[in-house]
Amino acid sequence: MIIIMKNNSEEKDVEKVVSRVKELGYDTHLSQGKTKTIIGIIGDLDREELIDSLAAYPEIDRLVPIQEPYKLANKSFKDSETVINIDDVVIGGKDIVIMAGPCAVESEEQIINTAKAVKRSGAKVLRGGAFKPRTSPYSFQGLHETGLKLLQKAARETGLKIVTEVMDPRDVELVGKYTDIFQIGARNMQNYFLLKEVGITDKPVLLKRGMSATYKELLMAAEYIMSSGNQKVILCERGIRTFEEYTRNTLDLVSIPVLKKSTHLPIVIDPSHATGHWDLVGSAAKGAVAMGVDGLIIEVHPEPARALSDGEQSLKFSKFDKLLSELKDISRVVGRNI
Amino acid sequence: MIIIMKNNSEEKDVEKVVSRVKELGYDTHLSQGKTKTIIGIIGDLDREELIDSLAAYPEIDRLVPIQEPYKLANKSFKDSETVINIDDVVIGGKDIVIMAGPCAVESEEQIINTAKAVKRSGAKVLRGGAFKPRTSPYSFQGLHETGLKLLQKAARETGLKIVTEVMDPRDVELVGKYTDIFQIGARNMQNYFLLKEVGITDKPVLLKRGMSATYKELLMAAEYIMSSGNQKVILCERGIRTFEEYTRNTLDLVSIPVLKKSTHLPIVIDPSHATGHWDLVGSAAKGAVAMGVDGLIIEVHPEPARALSDGEQSLKFSKFDKLLSELKDISRVVGRNI
Amino acid sequence: MIIIMKNNSEEKDVEKVVSRVKELGYDTHLSQGKTKTIIGIIGDLDREELIDSLAAYPEIDRLVPIQEPYKLANKSFKDSETVINIDDVVIGGKDIVIMAGPCAVESEEQIINTAKAVKRSGAKVLRGGAFKPRTSPYSFQGLHETGLKLLQKAARETGLKIVTEVMDPRDVELVGKYTDIFQIGARNMQNYFLLKEVGITDKPVLLKRGMSATYKELLMAAEYIMSSGNQKVILCERGIRTFEEYTRNTLDLVSIPVLKKSTHLPIVIDPSHATGHWDLVGSAAKGAVAMGVDGLIIEVHPEPARALSDGEQSLKFSKFDKLLSELKDISRVVGRNI
Amino acid sequence: MIIIMKNNSEEKDVEKVVSRVKELGYDTHLSQGKTKTIIGIIGDLDREELIDSLAAYPEIDRLVPIQEPYKLANKSFKDSETVINIDDVVIGGKDIVIMAGPCAVESEEQIINTAKAVKRSGAKVLRGGAFKPRTSPYSFQGLHETGLKLLQKAARETGLKIVTEVMDPRDVELVGKYTDIFQIGARNMQNYFLLKEVGITDKPVLLKRGMSATYKELLMAAEYIMSSGNQKVILCERGIRTFEEYTRNTLDLVSIPVLKKSTHLPIVIDPSHATGHWDLVGSAAKGAVAMGVDGLIIEVHPEPARALSDGEQSLKFSKFDKLLSELKDISRVVGRNI
Repeated sequence: MIIIMKNNSEEKDVEKVVSRVKELGYDTHLSQGKTKTIIGIIGDLDREELIDSLAAYPEIDRLVPIQEPYKLANKSFKDSETVINIDDVVIGGKDIVIMAGPCAVESEEQIINTAKAVKRSGAKVLRGGAFKPRTSPYSFQGLHETGLKLLQKAARETGLKIVTEVMDPRDVELVGKYTDIFQIGARNMQNYFLLKEVGITDKPVLLKRGMSATYKELLMAAEYIMSSGNQKVILCERGIRTFEEYTRNTLDLVSIPVLKKSTHLPIVIDPSHATGHWDLVGSAAKGAVAMGVDGLIIEVHPEPARALSDGEQSLKFSKFDKLLSELKDISRVVGRNI
Repeated sequence: MIIIMKNNSEEKDVEKVVSRVKELGYDTHLSQGKTKTIIGIIGDLDREELIDSLAAYPEIDRLVPIQEPYKLANKSFKDSETVINIDDVVIGGKDIVIMAGPCAVESEEQIINTAKAVKRSGAKVLRGGAFKPRTSPYSFQGLHETGLKLLQKAARETGLKIVTEVMDPRDVELVGKYTDIFQIGARNMQNYFLLKEVGITDKPVLLKRGMSATYKELLMAAEYIMSSGNQKVILCERGIRTFEEYTRNTLDLVSIPVLKKSTHLPIVIDPSHATGHWDLVGSAAKGAVAMGVDGLIIEVHPEPARALSDGEQSLKFSKFDKLLSELKDISRVVGRNI
Repeated sequence: MIIIMKNNSEEKDVEKVVSRVKELGYDTHLSQGKTKTIIGIIGDLDREELIDSLAAYPEIDRLVPIQEPYKLANKSFKDSETVINIDDVVIGGKDIVIMAGPCAVESEEQIINTAKAVKRSGAKVLRGGAFKPRTSPYSFQGLHETGLKLLQKAARETGLKIVTEVMDPRDVELVGKYTDIFQIGARNMQNYFLLKEVGITDKPVLLKRGMSATYKELLMAAEYIMSSGNQKVILCERGIRTFEEYTRNTLDLVSIPVLKKSTHLPIVIDPSHATGHWDLVGSAAKGAVAMGVDGLIIEVHPEPARALSDGEQSLKFSKFDKLLSELKDISRVVGRNI
Repeated sequence: MIIIMKNNSEEKDVEKVVSRVKELGYDTHLSQGKTKTIIGIIGDLDREELIDSLAAYPEIDRLVPIQEPYKLANKSFKDSETVINIDDVVIGGKDIVIMAGPCAVESEEQIINTAKAVKRSGAKVLRGGAFKPRTSPYSFQGLHETGLKLLQKAARETGLKIVTEVMDPRDVELVGKYTDIFQIGARNMQNYFLLKEVGITDKPVLLKRGMSATYKELLMAAEYIMSSGNQKVILCERGIRTFEEYTRNTLDLVSIPVLKKSTHLPIVIDPSHATGHWDLVGSAAKGAVAMGVDGLIIEVHPEPARALSDGEQSLKFSKFDKLLSELKDISRVVGRNI
């Protein structure tokens, strides 16, 4: 960390700060400019506590962290890309893994038909919510354990793996009985107790970026899971909030190459929640594949106009099937498989 | 709700949508413009499910909700302002209630000295975190139950009430043993299981606005608590995320008159987290008082430069005392008391 | 336009509003709900003036525009896509047009070498700034007419067309003597006098989306140019401001399919300004091609580390050449040419 | 400026960067940490060009500017607050200067009646647009010179000073014939040629903060005016764009104390454009006065429901009069006058 003192700071101000840093057990390195004095702190110490307390000194202009605050998720700290195996499904390898299914599990017929359809088109993982985060307490909140059982049934009939959201730390055990991958929703990206709870399981976690989170905050949320013991984190970009009202969110596709530079974890894109319109999903998915994504999570519903949740952003079976064949062509050009 | 059809929609498109609405049990009202047909839905039905499934019709341009989605929190649905009494402390009345204390409870000496100091200056409620939401898993996370016990001790010695954060639905019972007011942090504004859990207690809840939440979303979060049974919700604006990097957040003081128009719930401002700089706290607090706020929650620390959390935004005792006397003058002019 | 009255409005309130609308020369259509009265205005009247003055009635809750405010740029008002021909360069057709060159024109050697290199790799248009919008008045502001002359020389030697920025309405004539396409920068998207000035020329205008502009605002800016007489507008997405600090801006690639739905104008992406890092440009460009873009405008510099402007986001010749061959492969899969 | 090298950079990388810096004529200062090498550049050199070209080195992680980029506007570079005198009107002194009037000048009767009314209530400056920046080319764009003449007439009859917007550098001379203060609108905050043009006049300039501009960008825009010769800049906060849709913009009142710390220039708040609702203007104005503002610019219209522009945010004469008397009370408590 670097401490930038206020303009024309006096020697006694500098000494005061230096002595506080030394008291905390660190060495310093002074650099005297024309108007600014800069104090480098030697050691591993971009800790929030240190920043918080040093920032309170009125003699200091500001603090500049030097190290990225995430360690286990950091590309610099691990030699190879993280590859997550769930039986024969490999996330983070050459295959681009397609996860598909309805926003919410609504009925046995709905989920089983959808599972069969998406499997046929090439999906490897079945998505579907049993616990639904809804803005309104008066909206459909999911079928809960009944939904989990239906997901399991659909998965068994098709051989698909399951990804489903868990929202309450008390439900991690229950959801873990049925799912192959835990999903942490955007609203819970900084629900630290939930992160820690999935962090002590051994199942992969699909961690969605918060609505207005930065990359660093996303990686710090991953760090919560990883520092609890679970290294199998899959990052998911699902659109961020911007001023644009036409789309539900603004999909940040450049997150793909940025995260590939910053971390060894695999990256998945959710074009359905990001755009909020079924007729934008295909284009967004194509962009993601061309840009090096490791997976896509797409909403598919047998009859979107009768969906209990997010119908507008769901694809019908036929559109999904056509999209997947187009994605295969693009994936081939960029050296990947679907 | 109003349905706006696409330009030049044909009769059969309109019929298709109308018949779906009728199938759902609602009446419609048609309005035919030159290029646009508009279908009004009669009844109480701005339900998310309905919006979701109707929005999936390609014939529809968009849906316009007419009613506000929050009911219990809505000013139109309750005749009088909500006033919350905790023994002799009244939130939402003529008094502007000052809540003050350190970001985190660190030690007995720290919390008791602070409690005494803020009491002396005119605070009615002691703030202090025992469970701290930290961006990094490697940062100080609070003293947990030890912290709660210290808060209780400080409250008993001074007669102050307590407000402290609860982050995990499993901790609501524990925290409830010690606190007078539950605080729900900005990161947990949409942690619905936590909202429901405090919603089944009978203690007041200070609900902080999420970092990039709209007023409507804040009120919908309040609705989660209220629809679970607990009507004692205190809304708290603590700054929203904007592009500005100088301040920690951008304090939205106009939220005060807007919320006063929209809801009967009391409004509190947190100038410390909002600005992130102790030397901006006073000005922000003055603005809030002039604008009609019902309370302020301010960080005070005996020695900010040694705080384990958020030292930079904490006031020393003497500065806090001076600020309160200035706030008293302003409150008098606007017909309030501190 | 639809007028939504406040809850439980009385008959006299409704009459007051209706009579004002009739006074303005429009018919109304009433729809009485349980708590809300809705007044439809019949005719073409989403005019700002009308909205402004009606919104001042305290009896009105809000106004809902029904029509898009842009007309000439609107897809509904024109049968075919706009195709812009500049001699043999066709923008908006099957070809994806590559525009490339340095951020700023610095010297004859620099611009001519770059022109030759980008031409060789497949670019059709040479970009390069002679007037540079810089945050600081103390930064290099461009070579002005000297820069325009160098651009012209480079274009003549290579057969490339030119796109260059004009910032001052007084310079439109001068810049028009040299350039083939006017560029309007993001900061000037709502510089209405400048828009009108290029609107009375007959040269194509590359209109960059403002840093925090919505699609609708971008199209309204295009409308300024088009309503002045010039229909040859090329829309350019160059990243919007978000909270993310890693990238210079957040590239909104989903703007491509959204704008393709809303307007008949061609769409170009600027991956260089959007990302601000040369090692992200390639990935962003690939995404854009996969998503249906009509052109790309890319910064290329013979020696980025010696550039006077935006070196970090510039590609070297060799990297640009490699990128173009990769883009060609993707363009083929999506049915386009580079 | 400080250069932070990538993790574990090798000696030759460091030498390469150091030699480039020396070639540019600056000295360096090396600081070797465990994983990071930091190079301090000695001298005054946070110039954009330098940053741009150094940032292109792949060996460099990032650059940290040390100095604020604005100089003439910087509080550190001037001993006293800037006080602007226009005859007997003093902006930046003990008085809080009230500027009031309609959004647009519409007719002689309208502007003269408004001028008289606001003068009576205590305003010192008459506002009113003759050139109106409108999102739509089809909206009322102002009366142009006719409007300026009416403003002048109203000013002469009442003794008020005039503030009015100029949008086109070609109009600076014309507008300058009539106005006492030039207004630069939010959309033109980075219209550099316009800034330079008012910068070579000797009239005060009210510079509005751009819709999504940071404080630093606002001060850099002021720097454009000041470095052209005109030191009489008045900064104006008028709300920034956020996700909130209820208000037209989000008023950033904390800008007042932040700007007071950063610059010696006076600060004015525009509560009308910021909120967009007449019933929020009063509360916002009170907050601003309590927080130390130097002036307010408020929309007042004889009949808001018949205004041609921004009726919803305009106050009637009686409401304005009542507001001013309330503001006087608050101003007294904070040691100011209205």
